[in-house]
Amino acid sequence: MADADPPLSAQELRKADPDRVLTLTDGVFAIIITILVLELEVPDLSSGQSLRASLEEMRPTFMAFVVSFLLVGMYWVWHRDVFTRVRYVNRDLVWLNLLFLLPASMIPFAASVLGEYSTSATALHLYGAVLIAVTLMRVVIDWYLRHHPGLLWDSGSRQSRRIGSVLAAAPLVVYVLAMAVAGWQPALSMILYFSLPLLYFAFVTFLSADPRTRQATQEAS
Amino acid sequence: MADADPPLSAQELRKADPDRVLTLTDGVFAIIITILVLELEVPDLSSGQSLRASLEEMRPTFMAFVVSFLLVGMYWVWHRDVFTRVRYVNRDLVWLNLLFLLPASMIPFAASVLGEYSTSATALHLYGAVLIAVTLMRVVIDWYLRHHPGLLWDSGSRQSRRIGSVLAAAPLVVYVLAMAVAGWQPALSMILYFSLPLLYFAFVTFLSADPRTRQATQEAS
Amino acid sequence: MADADPPLSAQELRKADPDRVLTLTDGVFAIIITILVLELEVPDLSSGQSLRASLEEMRPTFMAFVVSFLLVGMYWVWHRDVFTRVRYVNRDLVWLNLLFLLPASMIPFAASVLGEYSTSATALHLYGAVLIAVTLMRVVIDWYLRHHPGLLWDSGSRQSRRIGSVLAAAPLVVYVLAMAVAGWQPALSMILYFSLPLLYFAFVTFLSADPRTRQATQEAS
Amino acid sequence: MADADPPLSAQELRKADPDRVLTLTDGVFAIIITILVLELEVPDLSSGQSLRASLEEMRPTFMAFVVSFLLVGMYWVWHRDVFTRVRYVNRDLVWLNLLFLLPASMIPFAASVLGEYSTSATALHLYGAVLIAVTLMRVVIDWYLRHHPGLLWDSGSRQSRRIGSVLAAAPLVVYVLAMAVAGWQPALSMILYFSLPLLYFAFVTFLSADPRTRQATQEAS
Repeated sequence: MADADPPLSAQELRKADPDRVLTLTDGVFAIIITILVLELEVPDLSSGQSLRASLEEMRPTFMAFVVSFLLVGMYWVWHRDVFTRVRYVNRDLVWLNLLFLLPASMIPFAASVLGEYSTSATALHLYGAVLIAVTLMRVVIDWYLRHHPGLLWDSGSRQSRRIGSVLAAAPLVVYVLAMAVAGWQPALSMILYFSLPLLYFAFVTFLSADPRTRQATQEAS
Repeated sequence: MADADPPLSAQELRKADPDRVLTLTDGVFAIIITILVLELEVPDLSSGQSLRASLEEMRPTFMAFVVSFLLVGMYWVWHRDVFTRVRYVNRDLVWLNLLFLLPASMIPFAASVLGEYSTSATALHLYGAVLIAVTLMRVVIDWYLRHHPGLLWDSGSRQSRRIGSVLAAAPLVVYVLAMAVAGWQPALSMILYFSLPLLYFAFVTFLSADPRTRQATQEAS
Repeated sequence: MADADPPLSAQELRKADPDRVLTLTDGVFAIIITILVLELEVPDLSSGQSLRASLEEMRPTFMAFVVSFLLVGMYWVWHRDVFTRVRYVNRDLVWLNLLFLLPASMIPFAASVLGEYSTSATALHLYGAVLIAVTLMRVVIDWYLRHHPGLLWDSGSRQSRRIGSVLAAAPLVVYVLAMAVAGWQPALSMILYFSLPLLYFAFVTFLSADPRTRQATQEAS
Repeated sequence: MADADPPLSAQELRKADPDRVLTLTDGVFAIIITILVLELEVPDLSSGQSLRASLEEMRPTFMAFVVSFLLVGMYWVWHRDVFTRVRYVNRDLVWLNLLFLLPASMIPFAASVLGEYSTSATALHLYGAVLIAVTLMRVVIDWYLRHHPGLLWDSGSRQSRRIGSVLAAAPLVVYVLAMAVAGWQPALSMILYFSLPLLYFAFVTFLSADPRTRQATQEAS
């Protein structure tokens, strides 16, 4: 629809308005980010343990909470960045967005399994699988928008499009690596997941510092 | 009110603004869609079972989660489509919308009962009853708007109105069928519920492909 | 501030914008209305009971869910109606609104206690106390706005203001009555709570039907 | 970006729009404020206790709920006040805001631990640590905005900036004090936490009453 040349009718314009898609998405992210904390349960001290000791035992759950919060934050920032370029939505994009929210809404579950069983290869695989599904949907949306420039305000420079696609897909490498080593090096696997927010910041900072990529990075990220 | 010919006063216009109705609805849908995942509980391995085996046992719950997510997504997309045509709300429409959200907010409960007792006819009936209640409210809202064209931006073509009504009501057939067979063929009943998102996509794609209905389908769906 | 005659500066105007107050309120109501359903717990059949029998035992909880949903809906519609007249918010109004949300956010807790212990005078008193607190905050906000007409778009007719105040306060009579009889007639008490949404509809319909009050009722409700 | 003198391009303007940051923040606060009530659990009377006695035993949890509600309300009002001055957001501010939401979203957990173990020094320390983290992020955001006036509509008077910074940081004194006495005077520590909303109101009222600070206080708070 939006790729067509003739101007949109008033009803088509209302239907192409991204507004409610963004409201729903922000609502879902607000809940995901907050539901994470529900995994932190008030300790039951009936076994005679002290509260301090109980809270210290919750450290892996706490770590999984903070890292998942940062990852969810990263995904939301990515969504916001991409949709500042989107002028119109169509039926496909509405559903691609819902299919992006589907795995994203599983992050709290995967995070709490990981918090509870932090040395289990299965828990590490589940966490990785959910993050890979979210990231793949990022790649699909990025690809869809590149092939439907009529939905965008402007399609940006070639370089910024390329950097955007690389940023959308790059976490895949880390997740696959983390899943691969989960069986025999669970601690390393966890470190890899947890390093992603840091890697992301380092990457963006690095590209922004280089005069050849600064402009395009700021457009894409 | 909105059917009256005289122009609305400034206060009537503010009261007829659909804005907060949409914000509340998007908020409720964001929560429904995310609460579904709360049904996925971290397995308790005290019985000596492995984490992988526990997660595999959760497969019906996981299936119920994904299908319910897609159904809730469908209902939200339907709501967004209908309300792109709504210019004004009145007291009736505000309450009809709340009565649409009432059964919709029960979907997570029905989904988790179904996930837990996936071969029980009672669970299948409960799930069907909730989905039928949501769908009936769709039909009521659709009917109400057809009889109050003053609330709409434009009432659309006769054909698009008819396709809209058929799309709103069509799932009823599948739900009634699924409930009817639940007693002696629980697996078939479940397949019917789960096929609805696919049927919906197939139906819209089919109508959009036919040149005689393409235009009206794009207006209505 | 808003009562002052001199025009507001740009920064004062941004601060007086009700926008985020409404977003927060709609978010809180969306959650309250949806959290209610979390009280409906998946039955545990380990005691050998059938799923149908378990669900039938949940009937009081289910009733409490539906009635609370309608009451919360009523409060939200009231809030929306009142704030269509509000042009500016000040610090007082922002906090009065938060103090209105405080008891409103306790409705799901009170509803679930009532659903669990539906014949207990204590549960009926708790439910009534929460609803009275919400209604009193309605009366306070109504009173505050009558004394700060500078915050409103227009202050409406004398009659519509009076009907608005009566509608805001009227449920108090029913709640006090329901609490008074809770000790010796719990069933009657429950019926009184549950009749409120019906009474409200009857009252508004009655006032709207009378030509002397129709106009003012439509402005106020 | 926003500090640069050349006018922003259309795409830069869309990216600098604070809109979705505010929607996410309001959503997160709506959830935090409402999740608090989930800590109030329906009492289990299997031990033969009366419902009234059970509810009375929940008094500390109830107190923690009300005080945490008011504290979360204070943080939201602070956020709303600060962001009425913000015209543009950049990548830093988006992430500083997320890092402000991170400890804020832990308040319900800390509140419920405190409600459950209200005389434990550990619970009092946890509560204090979370509130200090939220307050420190307030100070960081306040400091960041002072050093990036290009992001603001106008930077306000020198005096209002100073009062704003003091208001942002002042609770730290109370929290540190409350943590310091938690070990040997848990009741005093709790009183200190619970007095903060009152102190805040007294402070703002005091500054607003003094003609030398009235104007600047109304700008800053």
